[in-house]
Amino acid sequence: MKSVIVTLLGGAVLAASLSAVAQVAPEDQIKFRKAGYSYMSWNMGKIKAQVIDGAVEYNQQQVLAAATTIDAIANSGMGALYGSGTEQNVGNQTTRANPELFNNFPDVAELSGNLNQATANLVAAAQADDQGQIRAAFGQVGQACKACHDKYRMD
Amino acid sequence: MKSVIVTLLGGAVLAASLSAVAQVAPEDQIKFRKAGYSYMSWNMGKIKAQVIDGAVEYNQQQVLAAATTIDAIANSGMGALYGSGTEQNVGNQTTRANPELFNNFPDVAELSGNLNQATANLVAAAQADDQGQIRAAFGQVGQACKACHDKYRMD
Repeated sequence: MKSVIVTLLGGAVLAASLSAVAQVAPEDQIKFRKAGYSYMSWNMGKIKAQVIDGAVEYNQQQVLAAATTIDAIANSGMGALYGSGTEQNVGNQTTRANPELFNNFPDVAELSGNLNQATANLVAAAQADDQGQIRAAFGQVGQACKACHDKYRMD
Repeated sequence: MKSVIVTLLGGAVLAASLSAVAQVAPEDQIKFRKAGYSYMSWNMGKIKAQVIDGAVEYNQQQVLAAATTIDAIANSGMGALYGSGTEQNVGNQTTRANPELFNNFPDVAELSGNLNQATANLVAAAQADDQGQIRAAFGQVGQACKACHDKYRMD
């Protein structure tokens, strides 16, 4: 039942955000969504270096800032950047989005909902300053990313 | 006095974040910082369309999500993406950063502090659901962006 609610909510959010930015050209939609994922990946990398690999000394404020950024981007209505015409490369922008994504918005919305839950957990863990909890939440975020990549991102 | 404190704090944060991500290659630093600014610009555009231009109907939740994202990115330690070797184009990445930026980190930190204050105001205005307040804060954010572009971004 919970996943149904998440799906419906996600679908509504997706539809609302699609209408809100109809003025953005398809090429720019691809550019912006790639920018959002890229910036999330940098912030995931910072948390990984500090809490998973131990390559960099743990700093709660930096991990919290990174988690907050990932969570904010995940909640920023990226669905609006998958408008009509963005199923394929446009102008200078290439995309690895699988065209199947555009036929499965309810499923994508459910996967997005899972990501949003995981990023909220990551923020909470960083606020709690609990490295074990951060590691677990980081893993959940990574799995939520991968679940969508496996289905809807081409190699 | 306040600006001195902001400068010192900004400098400390900059130094700390520089050490925290020394492992990111210069080419990727440029890629990530451009992604961050690009994603901020999309979110600024959404607020502009809803609150300044009126091209899209105002939706508080969307404006708040956009403001939260801009604020999170502004506070994500972007200074770490201006490491040595990123003063010029690297590999596939071009940069418009003026080399003078790299000789003026305290000034950049002060400009960054101004941006952070403006983005915090924007989030507060969106939370208050007050379109007049959002317009004012949006203008402050735009001015804070422009202040840095005028000094440290090349055409």
